[in-house]
Order: sequence, then structure tokens, then C-alpha cells
Amino acid sequence: MSGVGAAPIGVFDSGVGGLTVLRAIHEQLPGESTVYLGDTARVPYGPKSPDTIRRYANEAAEFLLDRGVKVLVIACNTATAHASRRLSDRLDIPVIGVVRPGASEAVRVTRNGRIGVIGTRGTIDSGTYERAIRRVLPEAKVRSQACPLFVALAEEGWVSGDVAELTARTYLEGLLREGVDTLVLGCTHYPLLRGMLEDVAGPAITLVDSAEATARHTANVLDREGLRDERAAVSRQYFVTDDAERFEQLAEGFLGARVDGIEVVELGG
Amino acid sequence: MSGVGAAPIGVFDSGVGGLTVLRAIHEQLPGESTVYLGDTARVPYGPKSPDTIRRYANEAAEFLLDRGVKVLVIACNTATAHASRRLSDRLDIPVIGVVRPGASEAVRVTRNGRIGVIGTRGTIDSGTYERAIRRVLPEAKVRSQACPLFVALAEEGWVSGDVAELTARTYLEGLLREGVDTLVLGCTHYPLLRGMLEDVAGPAITLVDSAEATARHTANVLDREGLRDERAAVSRQYFVTDDAERFEQLAEGFLGARVDGIEVVELGG
Repeated sequence: MSGVGAAPIGVFDSGVGGLTVLRAIHEQLPGESTVYLGDTARVPYGPKSPDTIRRYANEAAEFLLDRGVKVLVIACNTATAHASRRLSDRLDIPVIGVVRPGASEAVRVTRNGRIGVIGTRGTIDSGTYERAIRRVLPEAKVRSQACPLFVALAEEGWVSGDVAELTARTYLEGLLREGVDTLVLGCTHYPLLRGMLEDVAGPAITLVDSAEATARHTANVLDREGLRDERAAVSRQYFVTDDAERFEQLAEGFLGARVDGIEVVELGG
Repeated sequence: MSGVGAAPIGVFDSGVGGLTVLRAIHEQLPGESTVYLGDTARVPYGPKSPDTIRRYANEAAEFLLDRGVKVLVIACNTATAHASRRLSDRLDIPVIGVVRPGASEAVRVTRNGRIGVIGTRGTIDSGTYERAIRRVLPEAKVRSQACPLFVALAEEGWVSGDVAELTARTYLEGLLREGVDTLVLGCTHYPLLRGMLEDVAGPAITLVDSAEATARHTANVLDREGLRDERAAVSRQYFVTDDAERFEQLAEGFLGARVDGIEVVELGG
């Protein structure tokens, strides 16, 4: 165990959604300490301009670097799309986004090369998953669908039932008709809807959870870089930029565990 | 016509929702010029802390004062709840929020004193409508219901149809059971859902549109203060703090007209 190995994994998102990625990291890397930063004062990033998002991502990265993280996981599709490459070039630690792990996993599991991607309007309009999938499998047929209501359903806790199912059927109708055999959950909120989405999609379609794929990729990167830690005692820290109370209320649904000791911090100037 | 009368009405919201208030102002006060400011870089205000919201509202007010507005309409329930009184005390021009006009209208139309209020979680949790209604009618029975999915439905354009109706039935079930005869639309997004909500609520319930009530109150304030303008040529200016494109896409649904020449500005420091 090296000194660097004992450092925490930094996970950053615009709000609570990234907690699904953190949850997968906790499950797959139980010996690792983590520091989570939710930029709740400025959520959501989706409607903001690329320059603004890059500035926010830089500030979040600086904050986590100051806390000594050994790897930075950008658990936010919007920030990954606009800031991951630049952060990766600029920082001395590995930077992991949520898009490429999900895209690679989709290519690995598809049999017919028809891959569906669902996400927020911002993620879908950016074409970031489509490009990432085509980089690995140029002949892939990617069909994307923005599902803006899913975030509201997940935060409302309406993760099953009539409204959720009817909404999902409406959004997925086109994808299903085009015969996709793989469906990428391209938004960190969507793992909460996974069971319902599996029912609606049916047994012929494999769901790819970007959160789980990102955690697996993080484990691989730690192994490759010799950064794995296997301590018995781990620390889990949580920071937000506004309204710790609302974050705490929502956190359990996303993380699968209660979150205590959330600290409110200020980013930027 | 005085020099001050020729000045525009300033309307401020965290995003596009306030355009329903602006629309009602345009309809009821067609001779008035308007300046709209949507703080799209920091939308939504709901999850942010009262201090943060007050700071944002101050910055927005300063921006509109610099453009010479003769009255300030806070077309945002969250900002009204946390900032309207302080702004009213501090500024030399009339400050109009969306809560009191809607509350007064509800008291005017109710026959049985049972008033339902729907809004975002932030607005409902703040109890602001309940207090405003009870100030006018202390014996009113107010039943409030947060409807977080309605904003997403309005922005998605799903303002009628199965998903919208099923969502509305789920949210309104309790209010209907308690025999309210009046339902206040306590969120600037909700006028888009009005037709569907009328169907779900049924003919025995009167819907109160806070946007329309606020425009009527604005007309009254202008008359009272001798600030009415009746020029043939009016100007309508639009400012946002980020992503003019998305604002423009959504604007037509909220305003009932295309919005041109949106200018992006920076607030605060």
C-alpha cells in the first residue's frame, strides 16, 4: 500500500445524480475512501453553456485536488462531454468520465450493433455518446432519445407505477421499433428507474448502466496505475455548494444509504 | 403621459416560467413597454438557500433598475417568497410579487373557503401561499400540494395527453377529496397545463392563474401610482444570463409568441 494509494477517489457531479456512480464505486471498491462533491448551487449543468460548464468543472477539480484525491471521476454527463478531455490534459491524476465506460460497455454487449442511448436533452443533443460508441464500433447504429421527464421522476421517487411506465413507453417507443438490443442509461439519475425500464424494454434488450460501467473502469484504472487501496477503514466525505438538507433527503434514493455530515462549501470566486 | 410613465415594466424570473406573467402583462397592458430578465445561468432558484436567492434577486433588480424600469414584477414564486419584501422596502419603485395577487384572487373567488394551492416543492414547503391566503381570509382552509413533475411536463410540451393527465390525477387526488372549490396555480410554469388541469379538476373547481392575477395587480398599481402608459409604439426587451438558444426554443410555449433579439448578460460579480 503506497501513500498515494491511501488517497481518496474524488467524485464530482452537478448534484445528487452522481451518487449512483459513487454507489457503484462503493460496491466495487469497498476498500477505497471517497470524496464526493455535488455542485448543488449551480445544478443543473445541462442548460448552461460549454464555457460555463468548463469553468465549473475546473473549480470542482481544484476543490477535489486540494483534498488530495488520487483520481477524478466526473460523474456528470454534461461535465464529461464538455470538460473531461481538457481536465485530463491538464491534471496529473487520471480523469474518468461517465461517457466512454458506458459506450464501451454497450459495444461489448450488443449483438446486432443497434444501440439505444437515453439521457437528458443536453446530453443527447451533444451527440457525445454517439461519437464515443462510433469510435469503438464505427458501424454501430446509434438511436438516441432525450427523456427529460426521467430526472423529475427519479427525484420525485416515482420510479415505478403508472406514470413512470407510461412516460417510459412514450419515450422508448421509437427505440424499440428500431430493434435496438442494447440501451445505455446515459444519465446518472436513470439507475433509479432501472427496474421499470427493464420491464418496459423487455427481455430482448440489455440495459447498460453508465454508473456501474464507470465504477468498473475506475477499478481498472486504479489497478493499471498501481493506485488500489485495500484498507479496512475508509472515509467517505460529502460536500455540496448549497442546500445540504435537500441533498440529504434525496441522497438515500441515489446512494442506497444515508449520508451524514454533509459540508457546504463555496467554489470559485 | 409622463416621462416616468413611458418607462418600461421590469419583469424578472429565474428562467422562462415568468414569461407566462409577461404574457398576461402584454395582454392586459398592451400599451406598456417591458424588459424581461431570465436568470437562466442560475435556474432553478427552488433548491437554493434563501440567502442565495436574495442575492440573486438583488442583482436582478439592480440590472432592471439600470434599464430604467418604473415597476419591478418578480415573476418567480421562489424569489417572491424570499426577496419581495426586502426589495420593496429598499427600492423607490413599486415591487410586485406573484404570491399575493394569486392569494387575493383565490380568496375573492372561493365560496366554501377551501382553497387548494399547487406549486414546486420549494414554494409549497415555504408555506408562502398559505400565509398570504390566511392574511386575507384567516378562516380559510388551505390544502397545498407540491407537483414537481409539472415543470418538466410544461418544458417538455406534454401539456395534455395520458402522462400529463395521470400525473395531475395523482397529484390532485388529495385536494379533490378534501372538497376545495378553488385551485391556485402557484408556479409560473403551470398556466401551460391549465386546460388539462381544468379537465382533471372538473367544473366545480375554479382555477386561479397567478400570472393573470399578477398582471391585473400590476395594472392596478400603475393606475394608483399614475404610471400608466398608452403609447402605440412599445418596446419589448429580453435578457438572459446563459443559453439564449434554449430560452428561445421554450419561450414561444410560455409567451404565446416568438421572442427575438435575446441578449445574454452577466449578473453580479
